[in-house]
Amino acid sequence: MDNFEFRIVKRDKNSKARVGVIKTPHGEVNTPIFMPVGTQASVKTLSSEDLKEIGAEMILGNTYHLYLRPGEQLVEKAGGLHKFMNWDRPILTDSGGFQVFSLNSLTKTSEQGVRFQSHLDGSYHLFTPEKVVEIQHALGADIIMVLDEPVFYPCSMEQAKRANQLTLNWAKRCKEAHKELEDKGFKHKQALFGIIQGSTYPELRKNSASALMKLDFPGYAIGGLSLGEPKSTTFEMVDLCVSYIPEQKPRYLMGVGTPEDMVEAISQGIDMFDCVLPTRNARNASLFTRLGKLIIKNSEYADDFSPIDSECGCSTCRNYSRAYLRHLFNTGEVSALRLATIHSLYFYMDLMKMAKDAILKNRFLEWKMEFLKKYHSNEKDEENKIGNNQTGEGK
Amino acid sequence: MDNFEFRIVKRDKNSKARVGVIKTPHGEVNTPIFMPVGTQASVKTLSSEDLKEIGAEMILGNTYHLYLRPGEQLVEKAGGLHKFMNWDRPILTDSGGFQVFSLNSLTKTSEQGVRFQSHLDGSYHLFTPEKVVEIQHALGADIIMVLDEPVFYPCSMEQAKRANQLTLNWAKRCKEAHKELEDKGFKHKQALFGIIQGSTYPELRKNSASALMKLDFPGYAIGGLSLGEPKSTTFEMVDLCVSYIPEQKPRYLMGVGTPEDMVEAISQGIDMFDCVLPTRNARNASLFTRLGKLIIKNSEYADDFSPIDSECGCSTCRNYSRAYLRHLFNTGEVSALRLATIHSLYFYMDLMKMAKDAILKNRFLEWKMEFLKKYHSNEKDEENKIGNNQTGEGK
Repeated sequence: MDNFEFRIVKRDKNSKARVGVIKTPHGEVNTPIFMPVGTQASVKTLSSEDLKEIGAEMILGNTYHLYLRPGEQLVEKAGGLHKFMNWDRPILTDSGGFQVFSLNSLTKTSEQGVRFQSHLDGSYHLFTPEKVVEIQHALGADIIMVLDEPVFYPCSMEQAKRANQLTLNWAKRCKEAHKELEDKGFKHKQALFGIIQGSTYPELRKNSASALMKLDFPGYAIGGLSLGEPKSTTFEMVDLCVSYIPEQKPRYLMGVGTPEDMVEAISQGIDMFDCVLPTRNARNASLFTRLGKLIIKNSEYADDFSPIDSECGCSTCRNYSRAYLRHLFNTGEVSALRLATIHSLYFYMDLMKMAKDAILKNRFLEWKMEFLKKYHSNEKDEENKIGNNQTGEGK
Repeated sequence: MDNFEFRIVKRDKNSKARVGVIKTPHGEVNTPIFMPVGTQASVKTLSSEDLKEIGAEMILGNTYHLYLRPGEQLVEKAGGLHKFMNWDRPILTDSGGFQVFSLNSLTKTSEQGVRFQSHLDGSYHLFTPEKVVEIQHALGADIIMVLDEPVFYPCSMEQAKRANQLTLNWAKRCKEAHKELEDKGFKHKQALFGIIQGSTYPELRKNSASALMKLDFPGYAIGGLSLGEPKSTTFEMVDLCVSYIPEQKPRYLMGVGTPEDMVEAISQGIDMFDCVLPTRNARNASLFTRLGKLIIKNSEYADDFSPIDSECGCSTCRNYSRAYLRHLFNTGEVSALRLATIHSLYFYMDLMKMAKDAILKNRFLEWKMEFLKKYHSNEKDEENKIGNNQTGEGK
């Protein structure tokens, strides 16, 4: 595939962490990478210029939402998602599967696909593997995902097994549909990633991973985690899945996560992340800082004229105080949502930069310890402290 | 006063329009000027950097709102309104009078001042002329306003007369209070403007104006207009008031207005404007363009990939299409509010620039005709067309 390439720049000596570069038709991105979630062709509260200033290298679009509004035909007519939202850097679109199952209580899944009702107007729709690939071709992202049937936690072995088989069958059909469309010379080339499922069952994860590897996707996602299972289980599953994915393929842990979880996953060899946490929390006045979470509405910040995070270089921290941001939140100014989002996303970008630097200097595990110690230093609840993190380094 | 200066750069030969420069402790601004309204230490949806990029030279802050939240003491502690909101260009604060009377149905006015209940929590407050000057000193704007008792339209002659006398008495007390605080060497110097009232009664306007001129304020506002009275009356009153204000003093028409009204008022010799119209309308998806108003939610824009206004140089027009902005509004993305506000304020800034250019070239009236013709060219309703504008040029 000449449109997609992943090369590893540096491997950490003491963990599975690595620094890499993903080449796409819209330029290169550095890994480990965090992708802000641009649900409806927009990362909530931000413009594409804001995203560039924050340093976002690749963003995620939600196929489910874009299919419903404004519809993939309109996006295609605009010249694709990049042109529609004026974002010329890489984009990844998910398959829509996760939203179909999480936003709709009544879905009907069969070998053919999944039938669902729009959460907006109750209208009926059918997503088949082929349809989902077609939609994603119309949207024109650089990386697209296969349709999967995610299972939530907890999930019976039987249910997870059935979903696994369906996910595998659908993955094959997605690959075929993608190849057919590609052969027609459909726009710029897109890389289709596979998704490993299997809930919290090691056996199923193994089966899912090994079967998908045979299909030889250019990259692999690990799905169905961080859904309420114990942290130790999450990282056990990540470790297992990673062990099946060839070194030279990018590994994407979907929907993760918190700074702590991402740092842990990087040490296990994960390259890509996405999560609504920094943006959603920011809109609820909960900010990420090097010293942990900061609830900006708290009265202690009423006359605190220091920036959110004194070590942060984002435009919000350079220009505004905690007292001012608190005032904007308390008076219901929507500009508060944007200023908070800018900060928290910038923090996530910074976190990836710090992780990369540490890997390049062969001191990832030391940096990780330092980062977590500082990140938890303000916590009163001892149980949340670093010592409680049960997972190993995934060696 | 060495802190405040107004000089006229150019007088139009065929109207009373003029180009000037106001010098303040936070730099110079060019007139005619439109001041975006920053109600709660923030122009809604925008950051101070946005305002700079749009080209705003001076903004307005609402004393009533800032007094209630976050309180003038907090703003003072932050180092003043400029520092609090990170805006280093000039600011004008109003006296709060208009909000007291328009946001509160139960106010009790006496010679002493006006007692009111907060619209937020019902708590009781008293604004006296002295108190309002003190608050504005704490906020630290470059131009501050006297407390007045605005009357709404329609208003009996008797009521307007009584309010006029109160406004005059309060103006004297404001001036004294201001001088006292100034003599104490209170922060940077502030220019206190008087406000001409008198409803729609020429006699009262004359009385108000001539009495206020004797107090020799460094600048004068015309209040109590554009409140529902006929347009012809508005401009009759403006003309009358302007005739009393010395040439060398800046003239500020409060709360006006629409592009048409501002263009008319400029020809009558008005130098300063403020209005919530561009920002409030933008948040309701109604945009100003050179071809009149544009309701971006209309279905005709669903697949219109052209910018809001093809002649506009704002960042929204440079980067996004009508179709995209419509999508953001229709899906409830708050970024839509900001992108729309950026456009409409930029249009207002552009309008002032165009007016200035035309005055400098001695072709203001021709430009005004061209502008209005184009601005109304899309209108179906003949009555709104330029021919219906009843006011003369104020010669």
